Amino acid sequence: MVHVVAVDVGGTSVKAALVDRDLNPVETLREPTRRVDGSVDVAHIADLITRLADGHEVAGVGVAVPGIVDDATGHVHTAVNLGWHDLPLRSRLRTLTGLPLLVRHDVRTGGLAEFTVGAATGVPNAVFLPIGTGIAAAFQVDGRPVVAGGFAGEIGHVVVDPGGATCNCGQVGCLETLAAAPAVGRRYTERTGREATAADVATRLAEDPDARAVWADAVAALGTALTLAATLFGPEVIVLGGGLAEAGDALVDPVREDLHARLTFQREPRVVRAALGQDAGRAGAALLGWQAAEQG
Amino acid sequence: MVHVVAVDVGGTSVKAALVDRDLNPVETLREPTRRVDGSVDVAHIADLITRLADGHEVAGVGVAVPGIVDDATGHVHTAVNLGWHDLPLRSRLRTLTGLPLLVRHDVRTGGLAEFTVGAATGVPNAVFLPIGTGIAAAFQVDGRPVVAGGFAGEIGHVVVDPGGATCNCGQVGCLETLAAAPAVGRRYTERTGREATAADVATRLAEDPDARAVWADAVAALGTALTLAATLFGPEVIVLGGGLAEAGDALVDPVREDLHARLTFQREPRVVRAALGQDAGRAGAALLGWQAAEQG
Repeated sequence: MVHVVAVDVGGTSVKAALVDRDLNPVETLREPTRRVDGSVDVAHIADLITRLADGHEVAGVGVAVPGIVDDATGHVHTAVNLGWHDLPLRSRLRTLTGLPLLVRHDVRTGGLAEFTVGAATGVPNAVFLPIGTGIAAAFQVDGRPVVAGGFAGEIGHVVVDPGGATCNCGQVGCLETLAAAPAVGRRYTERTGREATAADVATRLAEDPDARAVWADAVAALGTALTLAATLFGPEVIVLGGGLAEAGDALVDPVREDLHARLTFQREPRVVRAALGQDAGRAGAALLGWQAAEQG
Repeated sequence: MVHVVAVDVGGTSVKAALVDRDLNPVETLREPTRRVDGSVDVAHIADLITRLADGHEVAGVGVAVPGIVDDATGHVHTAVNLGWHDLPLRSRLRTLTGLPLLVRHDVRTGGLAEFTVGAATGVPNAVFLPIGTGIAAAFQVDGRPVVAGGFAGEIGHVVVDPGGATCNCGQVGCLETLAAAPAVGRRYTERTGREATAADVATRLAEDPDARAVWADAVAALGTALTLAATLFGPEVIVLGGGLAEAGDALVDPVREDLHARLTFQREPRVVRAALGQDAGRAGAALLGWQAAEQG
């Protein structure tokens, strides 16, 4: 039986899986990211792929990476967390593995899964917004991913609160300063003196007004940013994912209501929770592997 | 010699031209828009095309229209100024003229010209921003226009001043409330009690502090909106056009500086003035006509 290998490269670990036609993982490997002089070792990633492929017929490989990545060429412009700069990742990995292989930005890889087999299946104009340590978006317009050489989709850094906190990126009041998971936890702690994660804040919404206030700020920031997306891109569906979306309706319902209240003439998108959860990255990388197989 | 017909449909007049391969107009017609029960008469537009085509070999027709227009199908969702709603314009005009014909949103038609033979020729990721009575943008990403069923590009209605003036669209502080040509004139008049158009304001920048203050607000609003575009789309070039860009360097230079000061990690686009000026619409419609000819 023919399989593909799906790889997700992160700053702390590399996850790889042998995946079948139905996107089910048959075998998985997870190893700490290996670094050479601070840069993640490409040979180690190739080695993981080769080990998983050993004894199987592998038609293609899909690799998801963070950073500024040109999906068309598989060239990594920069990936700060991985210590990569101007790295022709796709051609390196093809040479090392000898397999058809495609590289894509990790958020756009998750988007590929949600737009193909997930919460926005078959919708030509859609946004996938995973909210975790950081926030970035995968935009699909007219049925095609928006890449722009890897520079598209940095919605975590649209300014939603010009008088707000300084962001790591140097701007003031970015979406991430109010709605990324660490910001939600930190803002609750600053307000109450009590340590809490974003998940803790989500569980306290019913009884804790401070939790509600911090959550409401995150929701309003998301509503503001998604209004911009609706005005510029006209999406039909917005898919909320990542750690913060684990809160389920407690996130999706108020974001939908906030967005509804802001929109006037724009097409109103449906706001839904991601269907694939933590599996979106692997499913997307597997879909990419099957694309690589077709392209040869 | 083979020609195409380029048509630009506006609320007050319809402009049509017989255009050659080099996009030069050979013959032009301009007539007041004819209305039937408030709706612009499609048969009149077809008649203009037929009259221009008479005695010539016409390979195709390109038609630019305002409103929410799906370029892919030539279906007009709404065009308030023309009194159109759910109008299958392309199929109607094809039937009436018997010619290969394509329809496109007027701003995206101008963008097609600037991206093909104008200020951003051959640039895969670019924005065309005509600033006139209203403001909308044509986005090109990865070498393709961003359409989203006609709902994309409404950059005139991104909120840049949440505490500002109410916009016609119902939102507060849209880009148009500070930077559209009528807003620049109105804000100067409110401030000084003296009647002025945006063009007047532009000519007074050297000696009049009130003109400078109003102009600076428009520039900052444009810088804010274009920062959002840079963050979400990663354009390489931004082309400023429309009436306000007639001010030339007095607009382009400060917008470039404002944008430069705002960007931190984003790819910095070049900011340039439109190359085609008032001819962008006709040139784009002619290019569309040649596309129609190829598609048959």
